Amino acid sequence: MRLSPLLTDLYELTMMQGYFLNDRNPRVVFDMFFRRQPFHGGFSLFAGLDDLLDGITGLSFSQDELEYLDSLKLFRREFLELLADFRFQGDIYSVEEGTPVFPNEPLIRVHGGLLETQLVESVLLTIINFQSLIATKASRILLASHGGNIVEFGLRRAQGVDGALSAARAAYIGGASATSNTLAGKLYGLPVRGTMAHSWVMAFDNELESFERYAELYPDMSVLLIDTYDTLGSGLANAIRVGRILKAKGKRLGVRLDSGDLEYLSKRVRRELDEAGLNDATIFVSNELDEEIIHELVTAGSPIDGWGVGTQLVTGGSEAAFSGVYKLVAKEENGEMIPTIKISNNPEKSTTPGIKQLYRYYDAQGTPLGDLLALEEENHPKDGPVVFHHPLYEERSFTLRDYAERRPLLTQVVRAGRRISPREQLPAVRERAIELVHHLDETYKRLLNPHIYKVSLSHRLKELKLSMLHSDHR
Amino acid sequence: MRLSPLLTDLYELTMMQGYFLNDRNPRVVFDMFFRRQPFHGGFSLFAGLDDLLDGITGLSFSQDELEYLDSLKLFRREFLELLADFRFQGDIYSVEEGTPVFPNEPLIRVHGGLLETQLVESVLLTIINFQSLIATKASRILLASHGGNIVEFGLRRAQGVDGALSAARAAYIGGASATSNTLAGKLYGLPVRGTMAHSWVMAFDNELESFERYAELYPDMSVLLIDTYDTLGSGLANAIRVGRILKAKGKRLGVRLDSGDLEYLSKRVRRELDEAGLNDATIFVSNELDEEIIHELVTAGSPIDGWGVGTQLVTGGSEAAFSGVYKLVAKEENGEMIPTIKISNNPEKSTTPGIKQLYRYYDAQGTPLGDLLALEEENHPKDGPVVFHHPLYEERSFTLRDYAERRPLLTQVVRAGRRISPREQLPAVRERAIELVHHLDETYKRLLNPHIYKVSLSHRLKELKLSMLHSDHR
Repeated sequence: MRLSPLLTDLYELTMMQGYFLNDRNPRVVFDMFFRRQPFHGGFSLFAGLDDLLDGITGLSFSQDELEYLDSLKLFRREFLELLADFRFQGDIYSVEEGTPVFPNEPLIRVHGGLLETQLVESVLLTIINFQSLIATKASRILLASHGGNIVEFGLRRAQGVDGALSAARAAYIGGASATSNTLAGKLYGLPVRGTMAHSWVMAFDNELESFERYAELYPDMSVLLIDTYDTLGSGLANAIRVGRILKAKGKRLGVRLDSGDLEYLSKRVRRELDEAGLNDATIFVSNELDEEIIHELVTAGSPIDGWGVGTQLVTGGSEAAFSGVYKLVAKEENGEMIPTIKISNNPEKSTTPGIKQLYRYYDAQGTPLGDLLALEEENHPKDGPVVFHHPLYEERSFTLRDYAERRPLLTQVVRAGRRISPREQLPAVRERAIELVHHLDETYKRLLNPHIYKVSLSHRLKELKLSMLHSDHR
Repeated sequence: MRLSPLLTDLYELTMMQGYFLNDRNPRVVFDMFFRRQPFHGGFSLFAGLDDLLDGITGLSFSQDELEYLDSLKLFRREFLELLADFRFQGDIYSVEEGTPVFPNEPLIRVHGGLLETQLVESVLLTIINFQSLIATKASRILLASHGGNIVEFGLRRAQGVDGALSAARAAYIGGASATSNTLAGKLYGLPVRGTMAHSWVMAFDNELESFERYAELYPDMSVLLIDTYDTLGSGLANAIRVGRILKAKGKRLGVRLDSGDLEYLSKRVRRELDEAGLNDATIFVSNELDEEIIHELVTAGSPIDGWGVGTQLVTGGSEAAFSGVYKLVAKEENGEMIPTIKISNNPEKSTTPGIKQLYRYYDAQGTPLGDLLALEEENHPKDGPVVFHHPLYEERSFTLRDYAERRPLLTQVVRAGRRISPREQLPAVRERAIELVHHLDETYKRLLNPHIYKVSLSHRLKELKLSMLHSDHR
């Protein structure tokens, strides 16, 4: 999909013009990072990169878009001429989609002229913030279900058309097995799934007929919605009748519960299905689910095989935004890249200066032990102990001696405006995400009040940040 | 923008095929209504209609889309041929965009064949739910600001590309005066606005220079961000220096606060601006605002002229979805339209059957007194007292005698698949919304714990619903 370069905050364009007219287009580096974990969780999943790279590397202004800008009476002819030839020509480094990530780590580094790096800010944040939010939510839901079958059902409650489409993509990366959104299936190659609505049951003369007609037509995906009239009465009885017909054909019944107490109903339904000899019949549930409800149901031993999750999965529910920001960390002066810092009265919000690599340390089983940010130029040694500095209390720092491996997480994906990383298939991204989350220590995966994963600065980076915090930059 | 007919839940398509193959395509009527007010508020603003009507009346399957469906191995040749010729040919009735609406009222009525009315369900809900959520949020923010100048700043935290675009549209309808989203400005003809980022200030050798360059270039929109280094120190002093230059040119300074305590800072900044003779300088604030924070700041007498609202406005914040649903209320049997009902164990969730008109009663000042749902065929009398039935306790019903006017709110907007309502300009929709909210009694506009607006059923409709609730429909 073409991304319009006008999908940007107006001030990016007015600032660009200002830089251009003041002849200020130094090379700069921006970091994208986030400030805190959503959902009170212990990790986030990074997502949205592929859509972002397609968007950024394809940016160009159409005649129509230039005419619109001209109509605003804010832009000079020579600047609009510059835009007419605009292509993003910078470099981008990024962690891989589906990687568990933590606050204050650079996830994307954008290198380029000030003008082009400023233009892409808004769209970078829109895409990465939203997809990372939803991938993270999906991962939490998958964890709560103990690896259950999660189907994304959120189209009708999503925030707009693309809110639905890119949520389907991100939910899949995070662990959903399918989406109900047909267009998302087509655009992203995702598995699509669906059952039936109450209106199907009501469109026939009676419930049994509606089930029979459905099972004849879709014997391989007969998930019958049994709560239109009376779940444990007519609904289940009619489903069992149809289930026996399906079984005789070598097919398997599914029933769906969309209301009522799902623990009570799933246990009752399971027992009656089993008593009817339909032991392979599956129970699928929906109805305003989220990870906490699913966790409770699973903990209580509810015999549920599949989960349709809508609103909460595609919007994030009570947390509708990811806290990603995009901050200047270095700029060229007299031919040299100089680190920059944004100082905040709130010490937590001051940025970490300089061009940085992000290293992850693992034990011999591949379990991450902690992350370290270091200046890229440090060429951080591969061996030997590494000190994880406590941000405030030096005496609470610790030295990591027994790690088996260390990997840099930021790799170059765009060079001089062209994608150089291979395009990944989503099933592979999804598998990697599930695998990487699997390797995280359980304490980081607790749904509430998780252990805080350690992210530290190298000694040199810490010294640089402290010296810049204490100098005057006005 | 073309809306793909695949932007639908898969089950709509599989059910459509089922109806088609079972030769069941009766004329039916669906109601779109919502179940509860978002944000614990007393009203919602209906929005999204124009986008929806464009989408629905333009629906058609491309060859590419049909091939995708074919690839799913779920659909038969004859059904795909039907889809190839598909156009929506039904009728749509709706309330106007920008109308304050209340739970359980039909806001849209879709009449047509079962197949076509089912296909449009998901997209109708996606568009109306999201835009109504955001228009409602914007209206609450405008109320909290006492009619202040609200600028929508949410692009970077929006839920995807269209989450940003349609949020900008809906926020404008609800009362925002402009958006920072340039593409939304172009697509919807919205006013666009912007100030500067901290990176602008940091890109120059010092803060004063950055302000001077900006004011030279944009003297008519010089809102200077003064909190990059020291708000009440260098920031304000440098802004005042530039403000005097602007004033000498007959231009007006604006300052923006994006951090810190906005009450304290705005009062201090106002005093110093006034002391410097810059009485016409304006103070614009941003930083994770919502209606509650704005309400507190306004109540405390903070001298703030404009508000940039991002995340909370474009996502709804802690409430990220509107509770709109789409339910079958009538279907053709033997040539007659028969009311239908969906009964729920939760009595609040049972639907109200039949083809209904929504009437609003006003006093002589145009203040709404209550809404009444009646069967369309009732031809409800224009004069005389009207009884508002309490849903549970008859003795708590009341009779409205002194109303000045009664208006039907549902009017036909699509006939046989074609739009028949004139396309409205957004500034007119916005003005109407602000005017209609202005006329609502203050008690419904309280931000928390508002008075509950009365919505009742006509005597005949109530009798119909009760009789259907008590009969057996299995």
